[in-house]
Amino acid sequence: MSTLHTLLALLRVKPASGYELARNSAIATDPVWAASHSQIYPLLHKLQQQGLVTSTKDTRGERLERTVYAITPRGEEAFQTWLEEPLHYLPYRDPFRLWIGFMDQIPPAVLMRGIDEHERRNLELAERYERVAGELARGEHPFIAIRRGRVPDPELARIARARAFQYTEVAAVARLEVEASRRARILARELHPESVNQPPPSQSRGRRTRR
Amino acid sequence: MSTLHTLLALLRVKPASGYELARNSAIATDPVWAASHSQIYPLLHKLQQQGLVTSTKDTRGERLERTVYAITPRGEEAFQTWLEEPLHYLPYRDPFRLWIGFMDQIPPAVLMRGIDEHERRNLELAERYERVAGELARGEHPFIAIRRGRVPDPELARIARARAFQYTEVAAVARLEVEASRRARILARELHPESVNQPPPSQSRGRRTRR
Repeated sequence: MSTLHTLLALLRVKPASGYELARNSAIATDPVWAASHSQIYPLLHKLQQQGLVTSTKDTRGERLERTVYAITPRGEEAFQTWLEEPLHYLPYRDPFRLWIGFMDQIPPAVLMRGIDEHERRNLELAERYERVAGELARGEHPFIAIRRGRVPDPELARIARARAFQYTEVAAVARLEVEASRRARILARELHPESVNQPPPSQSRGRRTRR
Repeated sequence: MSTLHTLLALLRVKPASGYELARNSAIATDPVWAASHSQIYPLLHKLQQQGLVTSTKDTRGERLERTVYAITPRGEEAFQTWLEEPLHYLPYRDPFRLWIGFMDQIPPAVLMRGIDEHERRNLELAERYERVAGELARGEHPFIAIRRGRVPDPELARIARARAFQYTEVAAVARLEVEASRRARILARELHPESVNQPPPSQSRGRRTRR
């Protein structure tokens, strides 16, 4: 269960509350491993039961109390064991390719809208991830900043390169989806020749009435 | 829940038993939407309760009885509705990119083995999907053969092109993973310079003892 290990990975950097872990996972691991935030507290409980993390109450001001989790030596060991295990692949489930395989049966306007949306969504992801990869490579990312002084500089440089690579590669996945959308659009036009040069429904009303 | 719709898609071609659906999904939809075969019977039951499929007992020979499922007009409608709905994206979870982001901390021999395995696995998938795409495009695939005579030839040609595209695109995903593995290997060697030119443990024993 890799979500559990993403939490250990975050706690290796520094002790954190459940809230901070949710925020940090959004920065650090969500692009490659989307954690459901509702899972975080049950998983922390499980990690604590297994002796992989400890928790302490931290009081700030008069009434503000929060639980802060820290990784234990056994937790460090469990994380390293996970790194050395064979990858556990997931069943491949690809909603876009499943759907697009039926493109001969999808009404052209719906088809074009779905392809446009897929392209837009992935272009946005690609640009975001490429930006983060750049920030990581230049050491400007919060993920690197938080570690500065905690780990020696040469080690920090290696971490930054590995994480920058991760983002470059997840951006490459999104870029492939953009290209796949463009290829899908070309085939969609060939399979639905009646729709060529026909504006999408929302823009066509004015023209169609021709008044 | 798309697995339910993949079953409807298969039943649109022709009525089939649960066993045949499992076999046909392996040919037709698993590469883009891995169905768990243990799901098939509970889902058929659900589809039947919703009036989207009917079942009949089919007796072959003296004792061999099987249940054959057929799609109903309401099932056809449900399938078409699903085709026209916005895509339901899944949370992105990528075990390879999650793991490779920690490559600075993975022992080099383990890292190289994982990268090799990822490349090998995806090269095999890419080649298999490209082969199927070719068979589909030439009309040689069982998926097309089963429809010949049931649907008019021009429609069959459109189906074949859409499905061939699906396979080409899922092959492109696997090709990207092959390229990502090769890029990962280059970075792994840079981050673990001590491992450069070091043979993997299994082959190195003889050399290390130098006897």
